[in-house]
Amino acid sequence: MIKNTKVNAAILIIGNEILSGRTQDTNTSSIALWLNTIGVRVNEVRVIPDIEDTIIDTVNHLRKVNDYLFTTGGIGPTHDDITAKSISKAFDLNYEIHKEAFEILETYYKPGEFNIGRQKMACMPKDANLIINPTSGAPGFNVENVFCLPGVPSILKSMLGGLKQKIIGGEPILSHTISLKTVESEIALSLTNVQNNNEDVEIGSYPFFQAGKLGVSIVIRSENKSKIEKCSDQILDFVVKKKIEIVDR
Amino acid sequence: MIKNTKVNAAILIIGNEILSGRTQDTNTSSIALWLNTIGVRVNEVRVIPDIEDTIIDTVNHLRKVNDYLFTTGGIGPTHDDITAKSISKAFDLNYEIHKEAFEILETYYKPGEFNIGRQKMACMPKDANLIINPTSGAPGFNVENVFCLPGVPSILKSMLGGLKQKIIGGEPILSHTISLKTVESEIALSLTNVQNNNEDVEIGSYPFFQAGKLGVSIVIRSENKSKIEKCSDQILDFVVKKKIEIVDR
Repeated sequence: MIKNTKVNAAILIIGNEILSGRTQDTNTSSIALWLNTIGVRVNEVRVIPDIEDTIIDTVNHLRKVNDYLFTTGGIGPTHDDITAKSISKAFDLNYEIHKEAFEILETYYKPGEFNIGRQKMACMPKDANLIINPTSGAPGFNVENVFCLPGVPSILKSMLGGLKQKIIGGEPILSHTISLKTVESEIALSLTNVQNNNEDVEIGSYPFFQAGKLGVSIVIRSENKSKIEKCSDQILDFVVKKKIEIVDR
Repeated sequence: MIKNTKVNAAILIIGNEILSGRTQDTNTSSIALWLNTIGVRVNEVRVIPDIEDTIIDTVNHLRKVNDYLFTTGGIGPTHDDITAKSISKAFDLNYEIHKEAFEILETYYKPGEFNIGRQKMACMPKDANLIINPTSGAPGFNVENVFCLPGVPSILKSMLGGLKQKIIGGEPILSHTISLKTVESEIALSLTNVQNNNEDVEIGSYPFFQAGKLGVSIVIRSENKSKIEKCSDQILDFVVKKKIEIVDR
């Protein structure tokens, strides 16, 4: 398996609700799929609780060993939303009202509705760059290579597009899937050979059970289209020889 | 927010398919919900790629700072399944055919079908304890406080029950949810007061959008039922005073 040598990122999911099992994280997938399109590979994901010291230590580690760090969760108005304060401490910056964020929120809410709870959402690390929120007003923010997004999946998704200009990626990471009506052990040796012949391409093998059908999806990933095609041809070669049914390619 | 002082665990998801965004992890939620019932709290989740050194380093770190470590993924028959080999190296144990696992698999498959690919699934760290797989034959395994489970969600779920005797948990972690027709900023200050008055109870606030309805779920967690009830009463107190509609409790 190849090492990730290009532009890479980590994702940090902040929230007890994921660790308790109550909520299933879907933000990792949204962020990762989007990052691949702009040539950024996700190296690592961590999920941590709403504990200030844990957030500070984890942010300070991940931002140093990755080109980018994306956090989700903990930027709302309640007591358990401590991401902005923790990020301020991680960067040794003042945690204060962000003038532009305050103005956005003041305009967003009806007169009299911009209460103290909501004003908390304008508090950020000093001089943070805002990430515009087209769904529900309250912006995310960015300090150096750290981008802080909300936990609510639909809001997070709506904010990703606006980040494109702020991130310098590499070549988009392309992916091709070949789905076969077979079991993994049937193709394991042949697939190992293909991987050994194509060391800088990432080949994954994933069993699936769909609508009562058993099969294997082979996923080929690379920044280089012709390398994917070469790999795909080699896989289809042994598939045909073994008379395995191709479900999708 | 309370620190996790009782029996705790980390979950390590091994697999490029999660990092690429292709597959959404659901195993974290399955494992965490089950662990809560036997009094084990999940402290941290990490998702890492199929890279041997990364697996070894992460396993060796997480198993030392947690009471238990659960890994998922990478124990199938293909080239990208390197968990068993990596765990062997992490513990400095031989990676070899496990006699009992070999016998289970030999019996599971029809004569002639137990090929080399499948025989790989019997290779494990020397003297590992098996975790029985009632769904698809191939067992998981356990070395010291590390439990290695497969990545396929339905198979993983079917194996959790068999682990109960192997894990010494604490008091089950109880949870109570109050769902309100309100927005977070409306209750933020009152909820902060309740949290401050009940520091050893975990109170989370989570906005929801369901069937066009906007609301907030307040989740109270503790090992102590009466502490949850006390907290719940204090929340309902301010909810009634504020004339907020209760959707569910």
